[in-house]
Amino acid sequence: MSSSLMAPAELEAAIRAVGAERYHDKHPFHHLLHGGKLGKGQVQAWALNRFCYQSAVPRKDAALMSRAFDRELRREWIHRILDHDGRDGEEGGIERWLVLTDALGLDRAYVVSMEGALPATRFAVEAYVTFVRERTLLEAVASSLTELFAPSIHRERIVGMLENYDFIGERAMQYFRRRLDQANRDADFALEFVQVHATTLATQDAVVDAVRFKCNVLWAQLDALHHAYVTPGLIPPGAFRPAGA
Amino acid sequence: MSSSLMAPAELEAAIRAVGAERYHDKHPFHHLLHGGKLGKGQVQAWALNRFCYQSAVPRKDAALMSRAFDRELRREWIHRILDHDGRDGEEGGIERWLVLTDALGLDRAYVVSMEGALPATRFAVEAYVTFVRERTLLEAVASSLTELFAPSIHRERIVGMLENYDFIGERAMQYFRRRLDQANRDADFALEFVQVHATTLATQDAVVDAVRFKCNVLWAQLDALHHAYVTPGLIPPGAFRPAGA
Repeated sequence: MSSSLMAPAELEAAIRAVGAERYHDKHPFHHLLHGGKLGKGQVQAWALNRFCYQSAVPRKDAALMSRAFDRELRREWIHRILDHDGRDGEEGGIERWLVLTDALGLDRAYVVSMEGALPATRFAVEAYVTFVRERTLLEAVASSLTELFAPSIHRERIVGMLENYDFIGERAMQYFRRRLDQANRDADFALEFVQVHATTLATQDAVVDAVRFKCNVLWAQLDALHHAYVTPGLIPPGAFRPAGA
Repeated sequence: MSSSLMAPAELEAAIRAVGAERYHDKHPFHHLLHGGKLGKGQVQAWALNRFCYQSAVPRKDAALMSRAFDRELRREWIHRILDHDGRDGEEGGIERWLVLTDALGLDRAYVVSMEGALPATRFAVEAYVTFVRERTLLEAVASSLTELFAPSIHRERIVGMLENYDFIGERAMQYFRRRLDQANRDADFALEFVQVHATTLATQDAVVDAVRFKCNVLWAQLDALHHAYVTPGLIPPGAFRPAGA
């Protein structure tokens, strides 16, 4: 626990320090993914597992809204759900993710069913939904703050994947292009919210812990992918098996 | 429990039978309200207590969405939140309710604080949010079905209150005019949802019970108002006291 109350800029620095140490851009799996070191089957495994996370995000955001008595907070937060689920007559982020899995040659019904996803992926994702449902509203907001670190990973991913994989084209990368702007706007709002509301040692600590928790949620998903599809390549029973694996 | 599986039309009839017996349009307080039999202080008490319900509805709907794995269900349900909280640059139902409480001469900050609301009102409202959060998704959807009965009460209310109270004008009734259309569309969707998904004796029974529960939530709020502000007029400590009461 920090021994003295942090000024808003110090709190931001403490949050960013968590990202510098723990955000999943540091994970070896991402280095392989972005560096063109994976085969198509491994990229498929990543995309269909990551779908579990994408499709849980609106439930997580709705859980947060269900606890918000402040109408202005709800009016701001609802954009996140609309961004992911889509507005009327408009595709959202989940649809754009399915464009990526389509482009990778995965059957859409299979992806949406999540049948082939790793159990560890789903446990991590649901732990995130549960955290947002059960912890304080402040911690729920804070757990979104990994978005502060997301734009750089998205930029790196777009360049790396387009350059390194002949089975990935521009259309498949639409999800990440769109998130570059959305994540910035969302992260700015959430950062200001925690700076305004975390005004005690205990709550500032809880905020930083929430970011740490969320980094763990992301990291654990890559650990599971790495174990199943890279080293030792031990795919659990029932999980997706790349062609020829 | 019904002894045999109901066809969709029979299920609708069973739901409507609950409304015919238990919907709060049957409550004596509503007869007094719509018939012009209440004083301004009593109408104020109704409006500020009912605000608790209005302002909980988006939390309830977000709780439902947080449990919906089906993107299409979320895309439909989110309209309810937008209707109540408002879209960008547009007032929503909660704002229109505050226009009504403004018109009744109530201080807006006092209304929003819910400090003067009856504890029984808040217990009933939060029981509804909890029900939607904890019961099956089917029961959560079904509990919205009192909207099948709402348009007639709204029409009766608009006419009755405009005719009978000189302190109520057209602008104050905007909330109810707008709900006439919204409630129809929402209720049609929810009715079809339960007709499609309640395909066993147990789930059909749970659906009808959910409507009964929701009627109880509405009825209990009027019981509390009646007891505090009509007969015996026993206002609990801390609750709103009309001028001169």
